Amino acid sequence: MKLYDYPYSSAAYRVRIALNLKGQTVEAVPVDLREGRQCSADYHALNPTGLVPSLDTGEGLLGQSLAIIEYLDERFPEPPLLPAGAFARARARSLALQVACDIHPLNNLRVRQYLERELGASEEQKLAWYHHWLRLGLDALERQLAGSGSLFCCGDTPGLADICLVPQLYNARRFGLDLAPYPRLVAIDTACQRLEAFANAHPDHRRSDE
Amino acid sequence: MKLYDYPYSSAAYRVRIALNLKGQTVEAVPVDLREGRQCSADYHALNPTGLVPSLDTGEGLLGQSLAIIEYLDERFPEPPLLPAGAFARARARSLALQVACDIHPLNNLRVRQYLERELGASEEQKLAWYHHWLRLGLDALERQLAGSGSLFCCGDTPGLADICLVPQLYNARRFGLDLAPYPRLVAIDTACQRLEAFANAHPDHRRSDE
Repeated sequence: MKLYDYPYSSAAYRVRIALNLKGQTVEAVPVDLREGRQCSADYHALNPTGLVPSLDTGEGLLGQSLAIIEYLDERFPEPPLLPAGAFARARARSLALQVACDIHPLNNLRVRQYLERELGASEEQKLAWYHHWLRLGLDALERQLAGSGSLFCCGDTPGLADICLVPQLYNARRFGLDLAPYPRLVAIDTACQRLEAFANAHPDHRRSDE
Repeated sequence: MKLYDYPYSSAAYRVRIALNLKGQTVEAVPVDLREGRQCSADYHALNPTGLVPSLDTGEGLLGQSLAIIEYLDERFPEPPLLPAGAFARARARSLALQVACDIHPLNNLRVRQYLERELGASEEQKLAWYHHWLRLGLDALERQLAGSGSLFCCGDTPGLADICLVPQLYNARRFGLDLAPYPRLVAIDTACQRLEAFANAHPDHRRSDE
């Protein structure tokens, strides 16, 4: 398989973690977002959304990190990335979607560029926007997870919700959000970072193929 | 089951379609977004994200429309809302997520309110924003679906991708987007609207329990 990847893409970071958890090695094809490579005709011919990541599965190309991760979980069932039971699975998906729908799309590069170029937002206004949606989302996640004593979001093995949370907290730190109000989320992040699958997917990790 | 619902919430509209396709009748609890009821302490105690819809499943409360729909699909397998085979399922999820992550979160009410209140965006600027993300998303969907001759997004039975597409096209019309560049999407929408499950979930449908 081939992953169209960019180290600082939060969605690509999710897929790298999932591939590592599944023990799958893929060929990495860099798509440099700073240089606008995702907007090239070549990349659009592969993935018409012009978004990163894409996974060339061998059966065809897939976009959308959560769809890719569910695909990996169905094709390589061990270790499972979702718990057993319809309700527990849905709860894990709900936590993941709170990151993937309610925080990340509002804060990604193309949106910050629009705010600046089309609406004349200042650096300060862009940062306030970024922190606003982050805080709303993280506040809700902290409240939902605070009660449980488990190591990860949904039990004592890492899964889909953790895969979405960790890159979002990486972004939160990168953009200077104070994480003191989120002790439970930070504890889950710390537990994840101890695992090779997460550590090796980190944007700052120097991958052997580079 | 109990659905915390609002007719004009695009995410709630998705869940109403899915419930109808599954033949499930639920108690509807209105949460009036115009009156800000989603921000009440009562609703936040149920769903800390303060977003609509929520489904009280009997096993617990679920938020996030896509997680709810996957739950319904696992709990009530017939008729299936996802095709057979890991790749086909992932492709259907990818189309759905293109609506749920890349279009809808950028255009919902709370974001338009932020643009106006915090960034001083005019009505014209808010509409340009709305159309911008819609067009980007619909352009990509049209290109991915144009080639196939199937009745719905993923074959000849309606499923997850159609469930996300139809409410998004409803919003596109509501906000005056010209749909002429999207003949394939409009044809899929027309096929869906012929089905009772879709027609009865429509925001303008006068439900018998009202």
